[in-house]
Amino acid sequence: MEQSIKLSVDAVVFGYESGTISVLLIKRKYNPFKGKWAIPGGFVLNDESLEEAVERELREETGVQINYLEQLYTFGNPKRDPRGRIISVAYFGLVHPNAFKIYASTDAEEVHWFKINELPELSFDHKEILDLAISRLQSKITYEPLGFELLDEKFPFSDLEKLYTTLLGRAIDRRNFRKKILKLNVLDELSEKVSKGSGRPANLFKFNEKRYFQLKKDGIVFDI
Amino acid sequence: MEQSIKLSVDAVVFGYESGTISVLLIKRKYNPFKGKWAIPGGFVLNDESLEEAVERELREETGVQINYLEQLYTFGNPKRDPRGRIISVAYFGLVHPNAFKIYASTDAEEVHWFKINELPELSFDHKEILDLAISRLQSKITYEPLGFELLDEKFPFSDLEKLYTTLLGRAIDRRNFRKKILKLNVLDELSEKVSKGSGRPANLFKFNEKRYFQLKKDGIVFDI
Repeated sequence: MEQSIKLSVDAVVFGYESGTISVLLIKRKYNPFKGKWAIPGGFVLNDESLEEAVERELREETGVQINYLEQLYTFGNPKRDPRGRIISVAYFGLVHPNAFKIYASTDAEEVHWFKINELPELSFDHKEILDLAISRLQSKITYEPLGFELLDEKFPFSDLEKLYTTLLGRAIDRRNFRKKILKLNVLDELSEKVSKGSGRPANLFKFNEKRYFQLKKDGIVFDI
Repeated sequence: MEQSIKLSVDAVVFGYESGTISVLLIKRKYNPFKGKWAIPGGFVLNDESLEEAVERELREETGVQINYLEQLYTFGNPKRDPRGRIISVAYFGLVHPNAFKIYASTDAEEVHWFKINELPELSFDHKEILDLAISRLQSKITYEPLGFELLDEKFPFSDLEKLYTTLLGRAIDRRNFRKKILKLNVLDELSEKVSKGSGRPANLFKFNEKRYFQLKKDGIVFDI
């Protein structure tokens, strides 16, 4: 019997900016789910890799060009798409939203960053895809260093703390967190200070790029 | 343009038995790679889920019936299969090989457990799939408790230690390991003892089933 299954890719792009996580969604121009919000994505071309496909679809629909999305999971429920059997390989990534100019095109009528606690109703099984991506993002914190592409080049320690609490969606033991992060040797403490609010001036930090990408590769075990 | 991509699934089944890890392979009955060894797998039927497909293919080709394979990764390189564009969703699992009777059928001419350090040449990109599965298995140790289905019901602590060193492929700090495992509260120490070799009798342990599956669900952070 002839197999009649189609293959698509979807890109969950999270944006982090000073205490807020958002996700990039498009409003669908065509049916099914015309006028509804969805994760950017589309069909794979015969001769392109899955990574090329997901980067192309993201670029075409939203204007966002990134080449470091990570494979999340493949969704293959036979009933997930009303058009027939379509499985989707989902990818995800975390970026600084200000680094990108977004504009809707091809299958997208609009494109917008939505805060993840203010999401519209989503098309297909995209809520399930997004939920899995969020939980993967949270667990990544425990085995990879994080923040290099998201924070300013020099930042007070509290900015890193805010990033972690935002991603986790809960408070953390601040003293322990500081101890554990410093133990990773991934930060260089600068002599420069910054004044914020009414507290005393705080030292600025900078990622040690070499060490950061080494640990990204080797993995860490970070109990937070 | 019509999409002409086919979808298959592959099952990497690891077996653990007293200090040895093996993997279940089949010898291919048909071309391409006729007579060569490969990971069990095959094409997805139009109306079955990916999980149903991988369990069916595994059962048909090897006789092994398991329903708790975990999705590993989707391999989509356009050149990975000489027959055309075929992407594969790979799954993996870890079992006690003695719990299964294996017999080759359908597309398999033979089926065999191979020690992972004595592997034959593999078909397609199956070496790459297997390597990723091994590294995922090793990293799972750091975020999930392990051993319930693999060790005897009652076992000396050294059996659990051997499981971890075997999976990691390296020695561990034994005293630290014992401390960390006991801290998880996942083992009940029994009053029964066992004599092995010339050492003094060792207490037997048993997994606390409720706590084990709770931690399996919640996740752990285990630095080994």
